[in-house]
This record gives sequence, C-alpha cells and structure tokens, in this order.
Amino acid sequence: MATPLVLHPDRALPADPATREVARRLYDTTRSLPLVCMHGHVEAEVLADDLPFPDPAHLLVVPDHYVTRMLVSQGIPLEDLGVPRRDGGAVESDPRAIWRRLCSNWHLFRGTPSRYWLEHELVEVFGVRVQPSAETADEIYDQLAATLSDPDFRPRALLRRFNIELISTTDPATSDLRHHARLREDGLGDRVIPTFRPDAVVHVTGEGWREHVEELGKLTGFDTSAYPGFLDALRKQREAFIRAGALATDHGHLGTDTTPLNDTEAARIYSAALDGKVTPEEAGAFAGHMLFVMAEMACEDGLVMQLHPGVLRNHHDDVHRAFGPDRGFDIPVAAEFTRGLRPLLNAFGHHPNFRIVLFTVDETVYSRELAPLAGAYPSVRLGAPWWFLDSPDGMRRFRELATETAGFYNTSGFVDDTRAFASIPARHDLARRIDAGYLARLVTEHRLSEDEATETAVDLAYHLPRIAYQRPRSP
Amino acid sequence: MATPLVLHPDRALPADPATREVARRLYDTTRSLPLVCMHGHVEAEVLADDLPFPDPAHLLVVPDHYVTRMLVSQGIPLEDLGVPRRDGGAVESDPRAIWRRLCSNWHLFRGTPSRYWLEHELVEVFGVRVQPSAETADEIYDQLAATLSDPDFRPRALLRRFNIELISTTDPATSDLRHHARLREDGLGDRVIPTFRPDAVVHVTGEGWREHVEELGKLTGFDTSAYPGFLDALRKQREAFIRAGALATDHGHLGTDTTPLNDTEAARIYSAALDGKVTPEEAGAFAGHMLFVMAEMACEDGLVMQLHPGVLRNHHDDVHRAFGPDRGFDIPVAAEFTRGLRPLLNAFGHHPNFRIVLFTVDETVYSRELAPLAGAYPSVRLGAPWWFLDSPDGMRRFRELATETAGFYNTSGFVDDTRAFASIPARHDLARRIDAGYLARLVTEHRLSEDEATETAVDLAYHLPRIAYQRPRSP
Amino acid sequence: MATPLVLHPDRALPADPATREVARRLYDTTRSLPLVCMHGHVEAEVLADDLPFPDPAHLLVVPDHYVTRMLVSQGIPLEDLGVPRRDGGAVESDPRAIWRRLCSNWHLFRGTPSRYWLEHELVEVFGVRVQPSAETADEIYDQLAATLSDPDFRPRALLRRFNIELISTTDPATSDLRHHARLREDGLGDRVIPTFRPDAVVHVTGEGWREHVEELGKLTGFDTSAYPGFLDALRKQREAFIRAGALATDHGHLGTDTTPLNDTEAARIYSAALDGKVTPEEAGAFAGHMLFVMAEMACEDGLVMQLHPGVLRNHHDDVHRAFGPDRGFDIPVAAEFTRGLRPLLNAFGHHPNFRIVLFTVDETVYSRELAPLAGAYPSVRLGAPWWFLDSPDGMRRFRELATETAGFYNTSGFVDDTRAFASIPARHDLARRIDAGYLARLVTEHRLSEDEATETAVDLAYHLPRIAYQRPRSP
Repeated sequence: MATPLVLHPDRALPADPATREVARRLYDTTRSLPLVCMHGHVEAEVLADDLPFPDPAHLLVVPDHYVTRMLVSQGIPLEDLGVPRRDGGAVESDPRAIWRRLCSNWHLFRGTPSRYWLEHELVEVFGVRVQPSAETADEIYDQLAATLSDPDFRPRALLRRFNIELISTTDPATSDLRHHARLREDGLGDRVIPTFRPDAVVHVTGEGWREHVEELGKLTGFDTSAYPGFLDALRKQREAFIRAGALATDHGHLGTDTTPLNDTEAARIYSAALDGKVTPEEAGAFAGHMLFVMAEMACEDGLVMQLHPGVLRNHHDDVHRAFGPDRGFDIPVAAEFTRGLRPLLNAFGHHPNFRIVLFTVDETVYSRELAPLAGAYPSVRLGAPWWFLDSPDGMRRFRELATETAGFYNTSGFVDDTRAFASIPARHDLARRIDAGYLARLVTEHRLSEDEATETAVDLAYHLPRIAYQRPRSP
Repeated sequence: MATPLVLHPDRALPADPATREVARRLYDTTRSLPLVCMHGHVEAEVLADDLPFPDPAHLLVVPDHYVTRMLVSQGIPLEDLGVPRRDGGAVESDPRAIWRRLCSNWHLFRGTPSRYWLEHELVEVFGVRVQPSAETADEIYDQLAATLSDPDFRPRALLRRFNIELISTTDPATSDLRHHARLREDGLGDRVIPTFRPDAVVHVTGEGWREHVEELGKLTGFDTSAYPGFLDALRKQREAFIRAGALATDHGHLGTDTTPLNDTEAARIYSAALDGKVTPEEAGAFAGHMLFVMAEMACEDGLVMQLHPGVLRNHHDDVHRAFGPDRGFDIPVAAEFTRGLRPLLNAFGHHPNFRIVLFTVDETVYSRELAPLAGAYPSVRLGAPWWFLDSPDGMRRFRELATETAGFYNTSGFVDDTRAFASIPARHDLARRIDAGYLARLVTEHRLSEDEATETAVDLAYHLPRIAYQRPRSP
Repeated sequence: MATPLVLHPDRALPADPATREVARRLYDTTRSLPLVCMHGHVEAEVLADDLPFPDPAHLLVVPDHYVTRMLVSQGIPLEDLGVPRRDGGAVESDPRAIWRRLCSNWHLFRGTPSRYWLEHELVEVFGVRVQPSAETADEIYDQLAATLSDPDFRPRALLRRFNIELISTTDPATSDLRHHARLREDGLGDRVIPTFRPDAVVHVTGEGWREHVEELGKLTGFDTSAYPGFLDALRKQREAFIRAGALATDHGHLGTDTTPLNDTEAARIYSAALDGKVTPEEAGAFAGHMLFVMAEMACEDGLVMQLHPGVLRNHHDDVHRAFGPDRGFDIPVAAEFTRGLRPLLNAFGHHPNFRIVLFTVDETVYSRELAPLAGAYPSVRLGAPWWFLDSPDGMRRFRELATETAGFYNTSGFVDDTRAFASIPARHDLARRIDAGYLARLVTEHRLSEDEATETAVDLAYHLPRIAYQRPRSP
C-alpha cells in the first residue's frame, strides 16, 4: 500500500514542547497574512497570457534547477529529464517518464527544502494524498494532469487563491514591458509589477552584450553606440519601469566592487567593449562602476537596489554549451561586502532617497559584514536567505547570525526569489514557520516577551517586505 | 498602562527543561563570584575623579556606539542623539529628548544584546520597573536622573557594589598614568590597573602619529626622532605601566601580519614616516614588524599581549570627519591568523614568559584557525567573543566552535571590553548564563559530569581570566 | 574514592526527550552494523605482524597528536610525553610517567572528542571502571598493561572483535605492499586493503622528494629521471595497488588548484625540480597539475580520488625539526573549492568512471561550495567531517550545513581517518549517535518520517561508505 502523504500542522516548528507551543501561536498570527513577493522570477508573460500550465513534469521538474541538479548529481542526465538542448538534440519527450524519474528518486530529497516545497504543493495545491514513489508515480501524474486542465488552476486564479497581494517579476533592461501593460489593462497593474535588471547590458563580456545595448538604443531612441547615450537610455528605461509600477532594480554580479570610474575611462572601456577589445579586468571595473552609477540614479528616481553577488555561473562549460544557463551548475564563491561596497556607501549610504537590499549565498558574511553594515547605514537592508540558504536550517541560522547585530528591523522580511510559481505559498509558509520558531526560542529563553514576538512575526511576514521596498506601511 | 519591566530568573538559559535545570544550578555557583575585568575601555579618569555620572542620556546613549548605530541605521541622525560634532556644530543638547528617542525606538533592539544589557542595568542598577516606550520615557528619565545624583551611584561606589575585584583600563603608550597614580594613592591600585596600548605610535599613517611619537619622546626622555630611541621609549613606558600595575598590552591591527623587518629597514621606514614619505605598504609592514617587536619585549617583561584584529575602522568618511572615531561605522573584514601569526609564534610561541590572547570579529576562524592554534601553542589563549559577537547566540557559537578543539582551558574566560561602566555586571551575568547553558547541554547529553561542569563554570567565570593574564591562581 | 567511569547509554544524543527517544531508536538500528573504514592511517604492518601492542602510553598517548598537542598547549613539553626526537636526544622513557601526565591533566579534555573516544576505549575495549586522575593513573595503567599482554588484544583479534568488515590503510606510492601481501596470504586480503597516496612524489619541494621518485623508478622499472617515465611508474604502481585490493587514492594538498599544464611545461618543471632549481610557484603549479593527471588516470582505472586540502603543515619550524611531522602543529587555512576544482570537474566531473570524495577542515565551505558541488556533479561526494571537525558538534554542523543542498546521498558516510586503531569503534559509534540525533530532529520537526530516517541512518552508517568508494551495494 502506498504511504500516505500528510502535512503535519507542526512541521518545521521547534521540537522543544514549550518552544513549539509559543511558535504555534506566533505562526497562527502570520499563516493567513497576504503574500508580498517583492523579488522573484515568475514570468510576466505567464500571468499576462493566463494559459493553463503544461503537464506535471514541465510545471514541477523540467524548469526547476533545484530539482534537476539533484537528480543529475546521482547520475541521471539532463536529457532524461526533458531539459531542452540548445542544439535541438533529442531529449526525453514523455512527461510521464520524467515524472517517474522524480518519483523513483524521491529519497534523494530527504532533508532538502525542495522536498518540503514539493510536498506542500502536492497536498495543498493539488490535493495529492500519497507519497511519491516508483509505484505511485503514475497515479499522482494522472491526478496532477487532471487538475491542471481545470480553469481554477490557471495562473491568475492561483494568484488569487495564493492570496498574493503583490508580486514582482524580474525583467531585462531591454524589456518593452508589454506583458505588464496587458496586466494593467486587465486591472492587475497594482498586483504584478516589473523589476529592472540591467545585468545583460552592464556586463560587457556577457553573451550577446552588443546586441542587448543595440536593442536598448532602439527601444529608447538614444544612441547607445557611445557611453553617454547608454546612460540616457538606462535612465529612460528606469522611468518606463517606474511608470509600469516598478519599485526596484536587481543586480547579479560575481563580486561586490563598486568603485566608480571617471566618465572618460568609463566611456573608453564602453567603446573598447563595442570593438571587442576589452580585457576581463576592464570588464570587471566597468561592472563595478555601473553599480555605482545605478545607485546614483536610484537616489534620483527612488528605485530600491537589490544586489545578488557571489555566484560563479555556469561552472561546467559543457552543460552550459549544451543546455544554457540556470541548470544547477552555478556555484557560490567566498563573498566580501565591507570593502566592495565602501565607495557606494560612502557616496550614498546616508542619502534619504537611497535603499539597497543585500543578498548572499556565503553565510559567513551574515555576522561579519552584512549585519554590521545594516546595523549602521540607514540605506542598507539585509535580504532574506537566498537560494541554497532558503531552507529551514539556513533561515534559522540567518536569524541567529544576523539579529543580534542588525536587529529585525534592518532585514527585508521574506523574499521568495523563485521561478516556480506553484511553490510560492510553500516558501512563504516555511519562512513564517522558521521565523516563528526563532522568535519562540527568544520568548522561551526570556529574551523577548510574547507580545513583542507576535508583533515582530507579523512585521517580518508582511510589513517589512513592503517597507524595505519603500511602499507605505499598511495600517 | 505601561508594560512592566521584569528580569526573568531563567533568562538566556536553554529552553529544554532538563538542560535548564542543570544550567540553573551551574549559574547559581557562578552568579555571585567577583568580576574580573581584564580588558575594557572604562576611563581611569572616571574612577580617579569619582564625580557623579551625568544625565541618563550621556550615561546610557550618547557614548554607547552599539546603541547609537542602531538608531542611526533607522534614519535618526547622530546629531539628534547628541553625539558631539568635531566642528562644534549644533547637536541635540536636551538629554531628555535624546532619551525619548531611545525609548520610542525600543523595538529596534529586540533580539540584540544591547536590549539585554540595558534592561539589566535599568532593573538591577537603577530599579526601573516599566518597559521603555514613548509613553514611559519621561518617567524613566526622572527616575534615572534622581538616582544618578545619589552618592551611592558614583563610580567608586558602583565599583564596590558591582563586586569588581579587578578592572583594567586601556591607555595609550603616551599616557602619564596620573589617574592611576591617584587611584593608587586612594588604595585602589590593586583594583584598577592600566593596559598598555601602543596603536597610536605604531601605525605610522594614523591621525596625529608624529605628535604621538614626539609626546612619547618627551615623556620618556628618549630621542624618538629615530627608530632606536623609539624602541627605548616604548620599553621605558612598558616599565612605567608595569610599575602602575599593568598586566597586559593591547593591539588593534587591521590584519595579523607579524613579519619582522631587519633593524635597518625598520629604521628607514620610521624615518620616512617622520618625513611624511611612507607608502601604505611600508606602513603595513612596519605595523606587522612592531607586533613582532612587542612580542619580543613581552618575553622580557612578562606583559600579556592581546590582539584585536580585523576591523576596518571608520568605514564612512563623512561620519568620521564630522563625529570622529567609534561611532558605529567600524565594519569587520575576513580574518586570517594561521599565516599572519606564524613568524611571531615561530619565534615566541613556546617561550615560557610569553602569552598572547587572540580576539576576532570573524567567527569563521574559531574552528578553523584559533582553536587549532590555541590547542597546540602553550602561549596562545582564545579571548572571549568580541564586540558584535559578545551576544547570547554569539557566545554559544564560540563555545560550540572552539571547545572541541581547544578545550575550555585554552580560553581566557569572559572579557567585557566595554566603555559602558554601568553595563559591566550585565555583561558578565549574560556570559555566565550562556556558559552555564553550554555546559548544561554537555551534561544533559552525557558528555560531561555535572561535577566537572560545575568546576569548569567557576573556572570560566573567575579563575581563567586571572590565569590567562598570568595572575596567580586563587585558592 | 575514585569517580566511577561509566558510559551513559544515551551519551551524545539530543537533550529534548521526544527527539532523544527517536534518536535512541535510530541508533539502535545502526549500533551493531559492521564497521566499514574506507580511509584511515592504521599501519598495514601492525595487522600483518599482529604483535601485541606496546605499553598503554605508547598505544594511547605518544602517537596520538590529538592528545599530545592538548598537553603541549598547557605547557608540557613533547619530550615529557615520550615523543621521540629526531636527533635521538633524551625524552621520557618511562611509559608510566607519560600515562600519569595524561591522567593528571584529564580536565583539559573536557568537551573534546578525544575525551569521548578515550573514555569509550577505556570502558569498552579495556574494561576500566574509574575516571582517570592523578590518583587513579597507576591503577588504570596496571589494568591496561595486563590487558595488552592478553592474546585476545592483539591487532587481528581486535579487528574481529571491533566487527571491522573492511579497513583501508594509507600507503605511499613507493610502497612495495608486502604487508598487504602477507595479509592476503593469511586470508585477510578482502578485509585490509591499501590506499594509494602519491603526495611524497608529487610535491617536488617536499622533504626527500628526489629519493622518493628514484625509489619509485627502482620499484617499477621505469626511468623516473624524466617526466614520462614518472607517469608510467605512477600508472604501474596504481595497478599494483589495485591488484592488492585498493579502491582509492588519497591526496593531501595545501590548496585545491587543479589546472593542468601542457606536457612540455610539466616535464620542464619536473626536470628543474630534479636539478633543485624549482620555484615555489612552479612546485605549486606542478602539484595542481598532478591532481588533474591523477583524475585522468582515475577515469581509466576506476580508483576513487580523495582530496584532503587546506592544512598548513608543520606550522612551528622547531617542533618539526626536533620531532618531525604529525605532532599537532598542523593548522588549517581558509579553503576554496569552486575555482580550484573547476578545471578538473570540467574535464571529468561527468565521467561515468570518475569519483572524487572531498574533505575539508574549513567548515565555511560546507554550505557555500561543497554542498552545491556535490549537489550537481555526479562524480562528487562529500567526505565525513575531518580531523578537528570529527567531533559531536562538528558532525552535527556538517549535517545541518550540507544536507539541505546536497541531501544525504551525496555524502560518503562516516570515515574515521585515524591512526589510533583502538579508537575506531568509538569514532564510528559517536558518528552513528550524532547522525541519529540529526535525523531524529528532522523526524520530531516533521521534516522526515521515521521510516525514512531509519533507512537513511543505516545507509549513512553502512551502505554509503561502500557506495562512495564504488563497492557494490550490499543486499
């Protein structure tokens, strides 16, 4: 007989009975609060088109690199998981076969957040009642497929059902924002907003950089064949994003250097890059300079900066060549913020219109650098645990390592940062449980009163994400 | 009605009931032991003059950069907190207004050690019985102000009331030690002792370096316009400090390099620095060299070295220019001890007369470098968790990360390192509770007998600080 | 009266009663499983000769650098512990005196794994019933000495008694494997196998390197006076090891660089090294290159690679000169794997015949680099917590930091890595308890069912070590 799949009401709460009891009460005050999703990777197109989701495998396995990398790590090729090859070569085309591979390897996910999120989705979103396994794979597949054809499971219906009050997509600087225009026409403009991500146009040695800046020029009517026009174009696009509802920009960099160049030098490197004659050092210096420039523009237009540094992308060249980016082969490196951000914070750290939210996949910087920076500079907020660290113990460690120096109110509240739309409630739910557990420990250890813990839990779950991104505080 | 302010007897003890019961017993054996304060920043002048403390704001807010930085991080300017500007510009002059700003933002300190310390002070030292808030600010202010005018709240009275057996101040190499002379005359010479801190004369590019070495020359009668006289002057001042009761020196460096230079090179850099022609690299090399030289002198005169590295001071230039150092804008960087200390430990690590106590604000080195070094070299002791890490979870992590390799007896016991005199009992109390909790877990997990845990708790609280600084072990 | 020495049945299990109950059940399913010792430093000669162990001090103190370094760190010279001087100078020759020094300083080991292991050995292997102390030292010594003369305490008898199913020794590339030949003749060939460790022949500036490569040439009949013959010789010795049962190679490097050189450059450095004209940079580049070459050979012959990087050996020159290596003065440095291993993993990371097991003494890389690498590359497995981290809290942190990204099935299971033969059961026992405790927490927090936790506990204790080293999975 198949093992039943049940979500325990106390899952991810602390084991100690007294602490659990407090945690349960705290979680009860936050569990039903609306979801505020200030940063993520759901495509605006999905919500604009509102088409039914595809089959279970292409919803839950193929695009989720947390899931595919784990299967790959135990010897299952990406091809067998239906991940499309760039050269159009053959990959598994039967979604049922892909789904079976996940279910047969369910044990690999023991102790991982993917397991937690998937179980939550299966039960809460799809009503599945048996544990995935080789034996139950087909039964579950059929149930999921049937559910997905129901109109109540289209993206916009789920947006309502998930109680998502606000969701930010992430959009390239060259986006024409037409999906957001459509959403606005349909009355969803306050609920789905874009985020300005200029990575593809500031990393001058990145794939297709020249095409991207040309496109930026066409879109804005500025001459991006030289540096001044490039800046004008960026400024204009930031304005377009703001008109479309944007509250923030987002920046993915390998390091955190923010040393500004003088205009002449910046312009020289920009031109050299267009000529294909740029060194890696110059490209790095230009990227750091552009972080400074983006902060400068942020002081003018009020967009909140988000920085996601420290990941060496596409660690395995062949996987990148064959399958493209975001396939699970992005590996963190040691991070450094104190020296890297110093130029930027010296210039704008006390500016009343500036805010920067910092993320890391190197948790050694929580207590050493990020909490001291956030606990001093009025412009700095600590983002939620990111990527590999967005996990039960990872989130707990974040609170333990950051709170004593930064407090709660210099953190951003939960940020789901996911491209897996159906996993959003699971992720917020887990974060609320972990924060409840951490706060409950403070209460049981008599380091905080339960009244204050309750207020803090609500702030972390709901108010702080809005405040961090400078939306007015709700009453 | 105002929320009552009560200190729970079990605060900061572990939640698990069995562990808490053991922890309570362990804490009961240490709670009343005298305080041994081997390193801190209380000014000798305060104890020598024994004047009443000023108003509540200038006792508890203005000089405490843990407190002001948190308020600044949420947008309150340093001016509004009464922190004096170097240019004499206007800052808040009403202590009551400053106090109100703290109380109105009390929630910012949730989960921080500042909150713990302040609550402990308010209740235990001043008898306050209501939680600080916008509403209670004035009432508390009045109570504090009244108390501060009572002669029983003068510094020397508190020294006795706090049961401080020994307290070390931190004094520049150029100190004439007159405050300590006065303390000695008044019979407090064994209770209040100086520490020799030569930072201002070994960092040749530091503010006012040339004036400092001139002063050192005048004070000692040696010609500090050249390197040999500089060394003679340092040696003479170390002797003066020893005569005044000093047991230790203290060294704040950005890195941990201890590579010695040959005398010619050291003398050359020293002269170049006097001529204002020194490079940052030369200045760094000289500072590292001077750590080696200080260790050499320590082998002769027996002063214990303390090293506090890894903080990038004055991260924000404007704050430094406007308000001076120690304003909350000192941010840690990654630390490295294994290679940095190698020259020094190769030369003196087994010297019978040498001891070095190591501190860090980068907790990644606890298990990786500090515990292995302290668990091998007879001269090395690990200092207590420092600054940002002097917190409930920070201290717990220190024991968890250091003990399994270094044991308990290669650590220094608690070091308060504070300039907030009235917070000293709170800090020792918290450390004793956290150590009791850690030891209790070892007992409950049957990793240590309760008898041994009790002996260890007493050693950590009282004997080890004395031993680490080479005072004879009390009976 | 002497304090009794008793091992509590619940030692090292979590304090929380509900969690402990689950942990006890999990531990009960693994406690009696056979020991699989895939990597360690027990000498093949000990098992081949099967002579009685020497006196208690030379079994439990003198060769165990975990024990001697702790005593040294509190001022006891290595000489007084009977550690032989390289120059033949006098050291303590009375084993009873050495043993007394350990027992008199028993308190130094509070909270350390050495204490746990020694207590376990004393009780379980030798039947000791009193706590070591100055008073009980002689009594215990006599009991141990009497036991050691019993034939049931010879190495092979203990091998059976300890239920060791398989044990790997570690042998230089220049080993003639004659001890293993003898073991094979005696029917122990499947139970005691060698591991190929080429460190002494790939680190060209290491002590005696030239002699080692000459020896390698003589042993294999290849001309190791030039690089091609050196490679041939290595290949031939790997084959000899495989015939002797080897499953793995082992590599100790300061860093993790794996950048390949072209053959001409490699040959040039090799020759320069033979001429004594190699720079430290060239030596480092050659060592990194050889890791790449060893991986290449591993793809051919199937030996699993083990990498143990990040330890600065012989930190104190005088200790090294006087007493040789492995005396407790090996200190970790910060580790980096993401960039270092990239060349090797780009070339072989997906090779079906390749496996690499990664170890670290810098636990900051668990969540940042090692778990992401192991959670993506099919060839990568995470080794068990190593050396300073092979401790109750160290092992717990490993699971907490690695599992959420890598899962359980990308880890190697427990690896004892010890030269202290009599401590092997204690080490495996402790690891099984800690894993039971971690899994029990997942169960109590409703993050894993107890059925799955039980299966996982057995896999970690028994199956995974075999699988990681590519032995077929037992039924």
